[in-house]
Amino acid sequence: MNRVKNFNAGPAALPLPALERARDEFLDFAKSGMSVMEHSHRGKEYEACHDEAIALLRELLGVPDTHEVLFVQGGASQLFAQIPMNLVQRGQTAEYVVTGAWGEKALSEAKAATAMLGGAVRVACTTGTGDGKEKSYVRAPAPGEVKVSPDAAYLHLTSNETIHGVEFDVTPARPFPATGGVPLVADMSSDFLWKKVDVSRFGLIYAGAQKNIGPSGVVVVIAAKALVEQGRKDIPKIFQLRTPAENKSLYNTPPTFGIYMIRNVLAWLKGLGGLDAMEARNRRKAAVLYGAIDGAPDFYRCPVERESRSVMNVVFRLPTEADEERFVKEAKARGMVGLKGHRSVGGIRVSTYNAVEPAWIDELAAFMAEFARKG
Amino acid sequence: MNRVKNFNAGPAALPLPALERARDEFLDFAKSGMSVMEHSHRGKEYEACHDEAIALLRELLGVPDTHEVLFVQGGASQLFAQIPMNLVQRGQTAEYVVTGAWGEKALSEAKAATAMLGGAVRVACTTGTGDGKEKSYVRAPAPGEVKVSPDAAYLHLTSNETIHGVEFDVTPARPFPATGGVPLVADMSSDFLWKKVDVSRFGLIYAGAQKNIGPSGVVVVIAAKALVEQGRKDIPKIFQLRTPAENKSLYNTPPTFGIYMIRNVLAWLKGLGGLDAMEARNRRKAAVLYGAIDGAPDFYRCPVERESRSVMNVVFRLPTEADEERFVKEAKARGMVGLKGHRSVGGIRVSTYNAVEPAWIDELAAFMAEFARKG
Repeated sequence: MNRVKNFNAGPAALPLPALERARDEFLDFAKSGMSVMEHSHRGKEYEACHDEAIALLRELLGVPDTHEVLFVQGGASQLFAQIPMNLVQRGQTAEYVVTGAWGEKALSEAKAATAMLGGAVRVACTTGTGDGKEKSYVRAPAPGEVKVSPDAAYLHLTSNETIHGVEFDVTPARPFPATGGVPLVADMSSDFLWKKVDVSRFGLIYAGAQKNIGPSGVVVVIAAKALVEQGRKDIPKIFQLRTPAENKSLYNTPPTFGIYMIRNVLAWLKGLGGLDAMEARNRRKAAVLYGAIDGAPDFYRCPVERESRSVMNVVFRLPTEADEERFVKEAKARGMVGLKGHRSVGGIRVSTYNAVEPAWIDELAAFMAEFARKG
Repeated sequence: MNRVKNFNAGPAALPLPALERARDEFLDFAKSGMSVMEHSHRGKEYEACHDEAIALLRELLGVPDTHEVLFVQGGASQLFAQIPMNLVQRGQTAEYVVTGAWGEKALSEAKAATAMLGGAVRVACTTGTGDGKEKSYVRAPAPGEVKVSPDAAYLHLTSNETIHGVEFDVTPARPFPATGGVPLVADMSSDFLWKKVDVSRFGLIYAGAQKNIGPSGVVVVIAAKALVEQGRKDIPKIFQLRTPAENKSLYNTPPTFGIYMIRNVLAWLKGLGGLDAMEARNRRKAAVLYGAIDGAPDFYRCPVERESRSVMNVVFRLPTEADEERFVKEAKARGMVGLKGHRSVGGIRVSTYNAVEPAWIDELAAFMAEFARKG
């Protein structure tokens, strides 16, 4: 077995110890004589694992008692619709900050959801430039740039734009916007749990698991209880966030294996020292990569403004597309995979999620220096 | 390792060869140097597995070209809402046959979904008896008992009621109802793929994977293309069935590991001889169990009418609840688990899904005879 250095954008690398733990008990979970997948979601063996995953999320992120931790299905893409279905009352408007392609998608689905239910959406701020279908995004908004209406249902943002490599709250110059009393809602799919965030500042945080915390098929939602309780009741029960909240995310069968894997990943993260240790590790990884880019300015170019450069998805261009193709190919020959940028923007993208080892980044940076030198 | 005999109702037993295959390549899928969970859903390695799962479903069930095979998320419970959201046009009515608790839930969510979107639902037939919250269900309707309005959006039924042990189409006396030109929609979650069905008779079939074909977190939908194309467009894109149909179920990240496991299970099923062999195996298992019940009529009692007795979930009562408790406990001591009936109805339930080995059933039947003899 020869494990590769996996820089995929998601689904992405998972920590080897979390995978090994799953493999070792794959046919016999907790000495129960069956796989965790074969357990009833109402049985004590699975439930202990489910509860542990929730408890670890609460502990690692310091989730206050005012907030619920939920597991839902459908990917963040389903939440794009489900959140406005819950939180935009008839006649209300939800506001969106758009800093990349995922923000555009969230906005588009919120339009459809609110049109269906008698609400509306408004763009509070976009940093996109250029006409045409593919806008360019190179930054998060500066403080004061986002104007929130005091009667908005919520303000939505994408804390990290996976495709464009634009992230909020990495530098003090690009903080999460102040919203007054308006609930702040954040899609944190691609930067969930790489560092601490002050959960009490958010009305709702959601994150597809398949970047930093597990396999695809599970979305973690952290939501203020008050917001969940006020949610609309004139939508099907399965879409009401109060349904998982009132049933510990066991209203219907959850994706048990995915939640089990999340438990394994979180236990590994805790063992590594929790989020403070993880933040130091990730900031160092990003510094090494941006250092390699900035160290060869005639060859590599990061389009993202310095204050908004993502720690999770480092994007850059080479002089020509042919160079980029060759870069991906030669890296692959050295066991480094998943470096091709998203098809909509091209270039190179290095995803540096929690499970990506610092040693892989060092090796990639050394390769970048060598590749630039050879030209 | 000591694997138990797992009669869970779902999530349920999976075939050991399918699990072993997954375990053996858990860290290194298809010699790619990473787990299948760590692969991009847009990469060729995962996509080959995704395509194979769809092709195996088509082959095993003989799905005609008129029908799509889709993977969606949220469990069958989400489809309870999503199907009427797609298929009930403004002013239309969808009709429901209710033969148990899952039919009740499907109806309830369809009410909410159609109320939201300007349609309606109607009960075309229910076999429930008794007042109060918990109705009793012991049969599927006889031919001619279900009256379908010719202008109904569709007729919905639950082909097998997992809790009540009531199944359609097991005997010729309880066939799927004739619907004229009205599309027939069936929740086949707990009896999907244990035998062939004539897919061309159905407008839409859906099934949560966690009974017969894989882990929880994936729903298989088989839908007439014409029906999908006519679906409503005034709902969010993520809920439109045309979205997975137009994107080979890769619009957003699917639950890749669950689909991979489905592939493994289907490959095992094909190797065993496909659905004709599986039907023979399952009918024999059910005959052994019902034989054990009917062979001790003073001790065991199956509440379900003979023509509607489920081949997948065999339910029965013992003289007292104390006997039932003791039965479950003594069976467990012999490595037979998951026999307790659903909390809403009590009694014993033996789920006999595809992965349940005939030898386990024989052992259980022998235990039943002995237990009845001892009294």
